[in-house]
Amino acid sequence: MDLTRLRLRLYFGEDFMFGPGKADLLEAIAAEGSISAAGRKMKMSYKRAWMLVEAMNAAFRDPLIDSTRGGPQGGGARLTEAGAQVLAHYRALEAVVSDAGAAQIDGLTTLLKD
Amino acid sequence: MDLTRLRLRLYFGEDFMFGPGKADLLEAIAAEGSISAAGRKMKMSYKRAWMLVEAMNAAFRDPLIDSTRGGPQGGGARLTEAGAQVLAHYRALEAVVSDAGAAQIDGLTTLLKD
Repeated sequence: MDLTRLRLRLYFGEDFMFGPGKADLLEAIAAEGSISAAGRKMKMSYKRAWMLVEAMNAAFRDPLIDSTRGGPQGGGARLTEAGAQVLAHYRALEAVVSDAGAAQIDGLTTLLKD
Repeated sequence: MDLTRLRLRLYFGEDFMFGPGKADLLEAIAAEGSISAAGRKMKMSYKRAWMLVEAMNAAFRDPLIDSTRGGPQGGGARLTEAGAQVLAHYRALEAVVSDAGAAQIDGLTTLLKD
């Protein structure tokens, strides 16, 4: 069996977790330009998408997502500079695991059935 | 906020996952010498501990855990050579993330509130 996916969850302080769901949501907000559209893309309820955004904005020094609710065209949202940095660090960390961890991942894969 | 824990889940093939729960269970079996004692140590039901053991033994070429059920002193269990290798690869991979990923983890940590 080959490695199909790798999920990395980072726990900080008492109760903040940053993992693949939040990273994908940041990426979807950057691509879609709105929290509701990003939530739909991820098959996540509007409420859940907003809760994750609020949790991220509360945990970091600067908000990661800048959003305007309502208005004639509905609300829009974009990543802030801090949001782009957080996403970049997380994606780079995933790449480190795949690259620097390749020998260990291969070692595990070899021990699995085909 | 500082990093308190890192959880790494590896998905293989269609539906096999190896992550911190299975790694900790292997470690507990090695330490306790029995699946039921390992399950208790991890606050996991006996049934769940056995299910995880069976899933691991089925997914790898060679069984990871060698166990004898029942008998006068109750069953005993130990890691096989393959079990010890799988555990070592996983722990080494966690260390790779912490070491090779230190700059990215620091980058994230710095952006978090204190």
